[in-house]
Amino acid sequence: MPRTDLPLAELPGYRAASTAPADFDDFWAQTLGEAARREAPVSAAVHRTPLTTLDVFDVGFPGFGGHTVKAWLTLPRARSGRLPCVVRFPGYGNGRANPLSALEYASCGYAHLVMDVRGQGTTDRGTGDTPDPEDSPHPHRPGFMTKGVLDPHRYYYRRVITDAVRAVAAARSFESVDPDRVAVVGASQGGGLAVAAGALAPGVAAVVADVPFLSHFRRAAEIASQGPYLEIAEYCRSYRDSAERVFSTLAYADALNFASRATAPARFSAAGMDAVTPPSTCYAVYNAYAGPKRMRLWEFNGHEGGDAFATEENLAFLAEHLG
Amino acid sequence: MPRTDLPLAELPGYRAASTAPADFDDFWAQTLGEAARREAPVSAAVHRTPLTTLDVFDVGFPGFGGHTVKAWLTLPRARSGRLPCVVRFPGYGNGRANPLSALEYASCGYAHLVMDVRGQGTTDRGTGDTPDPEDSPHPHRPGFMTKGVLDPHRYYYRRVITDAVRAVAAARSFESVDPDRVAVVGASQGGGLAVAAGALAPGVAAVVADVPFLSHFRRAAEIASQGPYLEIAEYCRSYRDSAERVFSTLAYADALNFASRATAPARFSAAGMDAVTPPSTCYAVYNAYAGPKRMRLWEFNGHEGGDAFATEENLAFLAEHLG
Amino acid sequence: MPRTDLPLAELPGYRAASTAPADFDDFWAQTLGEAARREAPVSAAVHRTPLTTLDVFDVGFPGFGGHTVKAWLTLPRARSGRLPCVVRFPGYGNGRANPLSALEYASCGYAHLVMDVRGQGTTDRGTGDTPDPEDSPHPHRPGFMTKGVLDPHRYYYRRVITDAVRAVAAARSFESVDPDRVAVVGASQGGGLAVAAGALAPGVAAVVADVPFLSHFRRAAEIASQGPYLEIAEYCRSYRDSAERVFSTLAYADALNFASRATAPARFSAAGMDAVTPPSTCYAVYNAYAGPKRMRLWEFNGHEGGDAFATEENLAFLAEHLG
Amino acid sequence: MPRTDLPLAELPGYRAASTAPADFDDFWAQTLGEAARREAPVSAAVHRTPLTTLDVFDVGFPGFGGHTVKAWLTLPRARSGRLPCVVRFPGYGNGRANPLSALEYASCGYAHLVMDVRGQGTTDRGTGDTPDPEDSPHPHRPGFMTKGVLDPHRYYYRRVITDAVRAVAAARSFESVDPDRVAVVGASQGGGLAVAAGALAPGVAAVVADVPFLSHFRRAAEIASQGPYLEIAEYCRSYRDSAERVFSTLAYADALNFASRATAPARFSAAGMDAVTPPSTCYAVYNAYAGPKRMRLWEFNGHEGGDAFATEENLAFLAEHLG
Amino acid sequence: MPRTDLPLAELPGYRAASTAPADFDDFWAQTLGEAARREAPVSAAVHRTPLTTLDVFDVGFPGFGGHTVKAWLTLPRARSGRLPCVVRFPGYGNGRANPLSALEYASCGYAHLVMDVRGQGTTDRGTGDTPDPEDSPHPHRPGFMTKGVLDPHRYYYRRVITDAVRAVAAARSFESVDPDRVAVVGASQGGGLAVAAGALAPGVAAVVADVPFLSHFRRAAEIASQGPYLEIAEYCRSYRDSAERVFSTLAYADALNFASRATAPARFSAAGMDAVTPPSTCYAVYNAYAGPKRMRLWEFNGHEGGDAFATEENLAFLAEHLG
Amino acid sequence: MPRTDLPLAELPGYRAASTAPADFDDFWAQTLGEAARREAPVSAAVHRTPLTTLDVFDVGFPGFGGHTVKAWLTLPRARSGRLPCVVRFPGYGNGRANPLSALEYASCGYAHLVMDVRGQGTTDRGTGDTPDPEDSPHPHRPGFMTKGVLDPHRYYYRRVITDAVRAVAAARSFESVDPDRVAVVGASQGGGLAVAAGALAPGVAAVVADVPFLSHFRRAAEIASQGPYLEIAEYCRSYRDSAERVFSTLAYADALNFASRATAPARFSAAGMDAVTPPSTCYAVYNAYAGPKRMRLWEFNGHEGGDAFATEENLAFLAEHLG
Repeated sequence: MPRTDLPLAELPGYRAASTAPADFDDFWAQTLGEAARREAPVSAAVHRTPLTTLDVFDVGFPGFGGHTVKAWLTLPRARSGRLPCVVRFPGYGNGRANPLSALEYASCGYAHLVMDVRGQGTTDRGTGDTPDPEDSPHPHRPGFMTKGVLDPHRYYYRRVITDAVRAVAAARSFESVDPDRVAVVGASQGGGLAVAAGALAPGVAAVVADVPFLSHFRRAAEIASQGPYLEIAEYCRSYRDSAERVFSTLAYADALNFASRATAPARFSAAGMDAVTPPSTCYAVYNAYAGPKRMRLWEFNGHEGGDAFATEENLAFLAEHLG
Repeated sequence: MPRTDLPLAELPGYRAASTAPADFDDFWAQTLGEAARREAPVSAAVHRTPLTTLDVFDVGFPGFGGHTVKAWLTLPRARSGRLPCVVRFPGYGNGRANPLSALEYASCGYAHLVMDVRGQGTTDRGTGDTPDPEDSPHPHRPGFMTKGVLDPHRYYYRRVITDAVRAVAAARSFESVDPDRVAVVGASQGGGLAVAAGALAPGVAAVVADVPFLSHFRRAAEIASQGPYLEIAEYCRSYRDSAERVFSTLAYADALNFASRATAPARFSAAGMDAVTPPSTCYAVYNAYAGPKRMRLWEFNGHEGGDAFATEENLAFLAEHLG
Repeated sequence: MPRTDLPLAELPGYRAASTAPADFDDFWAQTLGEAARREAPVSAAVHRTPLTTLDVFDVGFPGFGGHTVKAWLTLPRARSGRLPCVVRFPGYGNGRANPLSALEYASCGYAHLVMDVRGQGTTDRGTGDTPDPEDSPHPHRPGFMTKGVLDPHRYYYRRVITDAVRAVAAARSFESVDPDRVAVVGASQGGGLAVAAGALAPGVAAVVADVPFLSHFRRAAEIASQGPYLEIAEYCRSYRDSAERVFSTLAYADALNFASRATAPARFSAAGMDAVTPPSTCYAVYNAYAGPKRMRLWEFNGHEGGDAFATEENLAFLAEHLG
Repeated sequence: MPRTDLPLAELPGYRAASTAPADFDDFWAQTLGEAARREAPVSAAVHRTPLTTLDVFDVGFPGFGGHTVKAWLTLPRARSGRLPCVVRFPGYGNGRANPLSALEYASCGYAHLVMDVRGQGTTDRGTGDTPDPEDSPHPHRPGFMTKGVLDPHRYYYRRVITDAVRAVAAARSFESVDPDRVAVVGASQGGGLAVAAGALAPGVAAVVADVPFLSHFRRAAEIASQGPYLEIAEYCRSYRDSAERVFSTLAYADALNFASRATAPARFSAAGMDAVTPPSTCYAVYNAYAGPKRMRLWEFNGHEGGDAFATEENLAFLAEHLG
Repeated sequence: MPRTDLPLAELPGYRAASTAPADFDDFWAQTLGEAARREAPVSAAVHRTPLTTLDVFDVGFPGFGGHTVKAWLTLPRARSGRLPCVVRFPGYGNGRANPLSALEYASCGYAHLVMDVRGQGTTDRGTGDTPDPEDSPHPHRPGFMTKGVLDPHRYYYRRVITDAVRAVAAARSFESVDPDRVAVVGASQGGGLAVAAGALAPGVAAVVADVPFLSHFRRAAEIASQGPYLEIAEYCRSYRDSAERVFSTLAYADALNFASRATAPARFSAAGMDAVTPPSTCYAVYNAYAGPKRMRLWEFNGHEGGDAFATEENLAFLAEHLG
Repeated sequence: MPRTDLPLAELPGYRAASTAPADFDDFWAQTLGEAARREAPVSAAVHRTPLTTLDVFDVGFPGFGGHTVKAWLTLPRARSGRLPCVVRFPGYGNGRANPLSALEYASCGYAHLVMDVRGQGTTDRGTGDTPDPEDSPHPHRPGFMTKGVLDPHRYYYRRVITDAVRAVAAARSFESVDPDRVAVVGASQGGGLAVAAGALAPGVAAVVADVPFLSHFRRAAEIASQGPYLEIAEYCRSYRDSAERVFSTLAYADALNFASRATAPARFSAAGMDAVTPPSTCYAVYNAYAGPKRMRLWEFNGHEGGDAFATEENLAFLAEHLG
C-alpha cells in the first residue's frame, strides 16, 4: 500500500472547515437530555472467568432511548478505594468481544469499561450482545454508516454517540470508580467515539483517539479506498440525489465538529499508509481539536497503526492524566 | 470460473432430505393468518412517467405486521377486462427499482406487480422505498441473511416471505387483475421467494424460479464461494456455537421445504458455473418440487443464468399457463 | 473506488486541445461519401416476440463497405403518422442484444433503432449478429481498440462510425419515422458514437452521450485503470515504438474532434468515480462540444453512471427536442 | 495454486474418448491439399542482428489460403551440409518475437524455424508480423479461441494448423535443412500445434509437446481456471445454445484427435499445478498418442512447466532423434 | 472461503501413514543431547511495564547451538510458591511480540513463558528480538519453510524445535515454576511446535495445539491455498528435482511423526474452512497422536479458528491438567 | 496499470538530493579493500551443455568475506585473442539461472559472465547456487531488502555490491577477456548493481542499467505499489521506530549515491507505468549520474521495460563502447 493521501510534509498543516450546522449544540443538548431523563439502574453481574488477578462484571446500562447497552467492566482483583477508569469504544464491526481479549487496562490498575456498539459484533474476534432496536426508516447500505442517514434524528450514530456518553455516566456510577478520573479511549470507530464522548460528557479527564474514524466525512468518502467510509459513497451511488442530505446528517456525527468543542487533554494518532482512515482526515480532526493535544504519526503503517505499541504509549499518556 | 459443484451428469439426480421442522406448516399458517388479519387497503397512485404504451402505479400494500410494502404496478395502457398478472420478486439487495427498468411483462399484456423487498435497495440499479421496521434482536452480519436468525419468529425472511404472499393478495385486489391467473416469478432471491409464495398463496397459476436462492441452506453455506450465502458462514464464524440454531431457523425459510408443498406448474433454471447459487442447490429444490415442473440448465453460465433469454422462455411458459 | 481523476472542482474547467489532423474533415467526407454510394435497400422483417404493445423488426442496413449491419427497430404497435426516432448505439462489447432488453424508448412512443456494433456481442447480455468482415492488417490486441490502429483507413472505428452515420440514414428510410426528428443516443462506446454520428450525420435533432468512451484518447490511455482504454496502452507496451502512429490514427476517431464540429443540442454525463471513462475525459469532450449542451455529473458513481435514472432524464431531454 | 485437477496418482491412467467426427481425415486431407496447391516461393532475407555466431533470416512462406506467414530462420554461422531442423510454434498470444529471444536451438547446431501465429503477437515479449486476413463470420469473444468457431471451415485454428504443416514444408525447402530430420516443437499452444503438425505432416522425425494446449477441449473448458480455454466457456455463456456446435467445430482442432493418428516419437510434459492446461488434459492427449512416447511431469509447477530445464531435456531428446 | 478440503464427515476418520525415517529418534536424541550439553545460564531481567497485577521478565535462554533465544516470562505479581507454567510458541512470522499483547495466562495465575521464534518477527503485531545466526547452505524461498531444507541437519526447524524443547527446560529453571506442571501451547506454527516439544521434552503435563501447522507436509503442500505451506511448493517449483529430498528433510519436523511418540494429554483444534492449515492435515496429526486427546472443530472458521473462545476452552483444559 | 508516478513531462527534470553519509567513500574503500585482500583463485570448470557454438564454464570466484560466488562464463566457441566482456547481474530473486537461458551476449562475440546473487534463486526461472553464509543480526522481513538493515556493515547489499565489484575482477582474470573492455549490465536489481559496480570498479568501459532498482530508496519505499521495495515499508511497519536507522543504512547501497561518483558511459532506461521501480526513481539516479549518459523511456511499459528490444539497443550501445 503506497502513500496515496497528501505528502507527509503537508499533513501537519492540513485543516478542514467546520461542517457543524447551526443547531449542532442544541441537537446534542436535546439528545443527551432525553437520554439522561431515561436514566435507569446500571446492572453489573459477576462474570465467571478463569482469571485470578482480575474480576469481570457483565454490565448493562441505559443508552439512547433507554435501551440496555452491554459492557464488560474489568477490575484488578486486588483493589481498594476508587480507581481511575478507562472507558473504551471498539472499532467498526466489533462488539465488546470476549473479555479475555482485553486485559491490559485492568492489569495496569484501571477500572476498564468496554462498551458494546449496538448492532455490531460480527468480526472474527469482536462478538457483541447488544441489538440496535431501531431500524432505518429507509433502505440502507448493509452496515451501519447509512442506517437512517437521511434524518439526523434517526441516524444510527446519534444513538451510538449517546450510548458512548452514557457509558461515561455508567462508569462513574460504580463505587470502585473515581468519577473525576475517567478517560475515553478507542481506535478507529472507537477513536471517533472517544472524541465525541470527550466533547459531550462533562469532565472527562483524557481522550485517546487512535486513527480516528467518523472524521471529516466529506473528504473521507472521496479518498478512502478500503473500509466503512466506502458505504457512504456506495449509498450515494444508488441514491443519486441524496449526497447533500447525507452529508448534512453526517455533520452531526463528525468528529471534526466535536473536536472544536473539546477541552480534555487528548492524544491522537494517524498512520501514513492508512487506506481506511486516511491520515489527512485524522489530522483535520487533530488540528480542529480545542484542548491540549499531541499527535503520533505511524509513518509506514496502515490502519493497524501502532497496535500494542500504541497501547504502551497510550498507557503512559493515561498515567500522566489519570495519575 | 470453472465448475466447482457436482459434475453436470450428477445434477439431475441430486436430492436433499427435507429439513422442515415438525411445526413448519403451523408456523406458516399462523404467520400468514396474522398477516391476513392485518388486512388494510391497498393504495395505488398514478406514477408519472414518459411511457405512452403503459401505465405505472405506485402501490402500497400491507405486508407482515401490517407494514406498508411498496410495489410498482405496470399495466398496458390499452387494456380491457381483467388481465393475467405476473407478481415479481427482486434479487438480493434490490428494491423495486426504477419502473422504467422492467417493462417486458406489461408490454406483453400482463399486469406486472414488482414488490419491494423490505430493507433492500442499495445496488447500483435496484433502489427501494420500503424500510424493514424491525431490527434484529441480536447483532447480525451486515446484510439480511442473519438478521434475527436465532429465532424463527424474528427472522427477516419470515417477514419477507409473508410480504410475498401478501403481494399476491394485493395483486388480486386490483380490478384490472384476474385473480385466477396470477403467477409468481423471480430470479435468485426472487426465485426463492417465488417458490415460497407459490406454495403458501393458494391458487397461484404458475411459478418461475430462476437460479433460486434461499435453497438448501446447509449445502449452500458450505460451497457457495460468492454472494449472500457467505453471510451465513461468516455469522457462524463469529458466533461459533450458533450453527445448529442458525440452521434450525433457516429451515423455516428454505425453498426446499416449500417446494415439497407446492402444486402449481413451475419452471426452474440453474447455471452450471454459478458460484452464488450453486447448481446442486437449485436441483435439490427442483427435485423436491411437488407440482408439474421443468428445469432449464444454462450450462456455461454463472449466476446471470439466462438473463433476457430466460425472460423470453419464461414468457412462453407463462403464456401456456396464464393463457 | 476512491476518486483518482482531477478534483471535482476542476472538472468543469478541464479542456483539451484538439488533436484533429489537417485532413480530418476530408477523411470523413470521403469515407462517408464512399459509404453513401454503396447505398442498398434497408431490410426490415417482422421479428416474433410475445410483446403486445410493441412491434419489433429485424433490420439490416448497408454500413461501411456495403456490409450488412443488423439492428432492431421497435415501434409502438398503436401508432399513426411519422414518429420521432431514437437511434441508439451499444456499449463496448455489446451487440444489439435481445430486443426484449430495451423497451423503454418505444414504450414512450418513439421509433427505436438499436444498431449492432460489428464484431461485438460477447458480453453476458449483449449478443450480436453482425460480423466485421475486415480483419486487421497487423496483429492487434484482443478486442477492438487496436484493430487496424496503424492506419486510419484500416482502423476498426472508421467502419463503426460510418455504420453509425448510416444507421441514421437507415432510420430515416422507414416510413414510420419522421426524418427531421431523429436523435442519436448511447452510453460509453455508444456515447462516443453518438457524438460522432451527431456531428457527421446532417440534421440530427439531439445527441445524448452518457459517460462517453472514445474520448480524449491520449489522456484516457494514461489514466483509465479499467476497461477498454487499457487495450491501447497494452498494444503500445508490446509494439514499443508505435505510440505516435497509434495516437495519430486514434485522432480520426476521437469524440474530442467530432464535438467541435457538432451543432445539435446535446446532453452529456460523467461519473465522478469512473475508472473506465474517467470524468476528465468526458468533460474534455463536453467542453469542446460546439452545439447547445448540458452536463450531468453523477458524483459518486462509477461507470454505471445514472443507469435507469439517466434514462429518465434523457427521455425528458428527448421530449424537449423531438417533441 | 493448490492442485485442483485429478490426484497425481490418477493422471497416468486418465484417458478420454476420441471426439473425431467421421470426416476428420477427409477434412484435413482436403484442407491441406488446397493449401499445398497454393504453393508459392518461400522467401528468406538476411536479417541484420549483432549476432556473430548465428545468422538470422526473415522468412515468408505461403500458409493457409496462400497467405504469407512470417518466420525467423536461425542457423549457426559456421555450418556445412544439411542441418537437422527444429520447427517451433509459439504459445498463445505470441508471434515469432524478437529473434534474439530464442537462440538455443541454433546455438546447438540446429536450423531453427519459429513460425508467426497469424493474428497473434501482443504479449509483452512476443510481437508478431503476420495478420490473419480472415475475420470471423460472427461476433466472437476477443482472442482467437472462438474466431469462426461455429463452422469448422471458417475456424481460426483450421488456418493456423495448416500454417504449421506448411511451416514444415517451408523448412524442408531450405538447402541448409535436411528434410528427413525435421522436428516440431512447442509449449502450450505450440505444443498442441506440434502434435497436430506431427500427425499431419508426413515424415516428421520427432515431436515435443510441453504442457500442450488445444487438448481435450470439453474437459478443459470446464476445469481450466486461467488462460485461453476460458474464452470457450465465455462464448458459450453469451451464445447460450451454441455449445454443441462449438464443440463440434473444436473437435477438428483437438490434439486428442491428432494424437491417435501420429507415429513420430514424441516427448510430452504436464505440470501438476497447471491451471491453464490442466494436467489431465495433457495426459489425455499423451495417452491417446499412437507413436513412441514419453511423459515428463513437473509435479509442483504451474503452466511454466520446466522452462529452461525442459529445454535442456528436450534438446537431449532431439539429439537422440535428429542425430 | 467455501470448504475445499474433505467433507466434514470424513475428517474424523482421516489418517496418514507415518513418514518418520528410520533414524528419526536417533536424530532427535543426538540433536537434543548436543543442545543440552551447551547448557548455559538462563537470564531474566525485570522488564518495566505499566502493569500492576503482573510482572514481566526479559528472558534469554540457550537454544540450539547455544544461541541465546529471547522470551518473555510473565507472572502474577501476587504469587507464592511454585506456579504451574504455560510455555507458548508463536504463529508463523511472529516473534514474542510486545508483552502487553498476551496477558491472559499470567492473569489466570500461571507463569507464562512465550518464546521468540528465531529469525521471525515481522508481522504487524509480532516483533521479535532473536536472530537465527545460521543461514541456509543454499538459496531458499524467502521465508523459513525451505531454509536449509536440503539437509535435515541444516534445516531451520531443527533449530526451532530444539529451541522449543530448551524453552521447557528454561521454564523449569525458574524458581517460581513448578517443573512438574509445565504445559506447551500454541496455534498454527505454535501448535506444531507444541506437539513436537510435548513429544520431545520429558514430563510435559499437557499439550494444546490449535490449528497446527508443520503437520502432514506432503498433503499440506498440495492442498493449502494460502499461507506458508505454499513456500514448499514454490521451492519445488524452482528446484524441479528436489521434491524427494525436500520431503525427506521435512519428515524430521513433521508433527505427524512427533504425535505418535507423545504421551501427554492433548487438546487439538481444526477449522473447517481453513486454507492455511487445512483441517485434514490437523486431523491426520490428531489421529496419530498417541496420548489422551480431544479435538475441537470450528466448523465455519478459517485459520483464525477459535481465537479468544479457543483460549477460554484451552484455559479450562489447562486447569484440569495443571490444576 | 495507469500512470501513478509523476507526469511524463516532469520526469526528465526530476532530481533527488544525495543521501550519501560523510563516510560513504571510506566505507566502500574499506569494504572493497578487505575483499580484495581475501583474493583467492577463480575457478572455471567446463560445464557440459548441448551447445555447439558456445562454451560454458562453471565459475567460482571469491566475493565478500572470501565466500565463493558462482557464475556462468559463456564464450563463443570460435574465438581468438581477448574478448570484450559483459558482466551481468540478475534481477531480484534470481540466481545465475540455467545457462541456456541467456545466450545473446556470447552469441554476439562477447565473453559473458553472469553472477549469482548470493542467497537468491527461487523464481520460476532463476535458480541459483550461491548461499549467503551470513544471516541477519535481527529478524528481518522475508526477502533480502531488510536483511541486516539496522547496520551498514551487516547489511545484505554490502555483500552483494562487493560481490559485483569482485565479479568484474574475476572477469578480468580470464585470459580470454580483455580487461580494458569490461561492461557491467543488468535490469532492475541488476541495473542497480551495475551502477554500483560501475562506480566502484575502476576502469569499467560501459554501464547498462535498465529500470534500475536500489535507487532513491526513500521515495521508492513510499510510492512503489509492487515488488521488493515494499519489504522496506513492511519492515518499518513492524519495527515502528526504525525508519531513520533503516534509511541511514540504505544510503550506503543507494544507486543515487553511486551514480554521482561514476564516470563510465552509461545507458539507462525507465518505464512509464512501472509500479516496481517507479520511473521517477530511475530518473533521479540518471540525473545524478556523473558520466556520459543517455536515457530510454519505455512510455507505456511496466517493469518489463524493453525486454528483448532493450537487449537489442543495449547491444548497439555496447558495440560502441566495447568495440
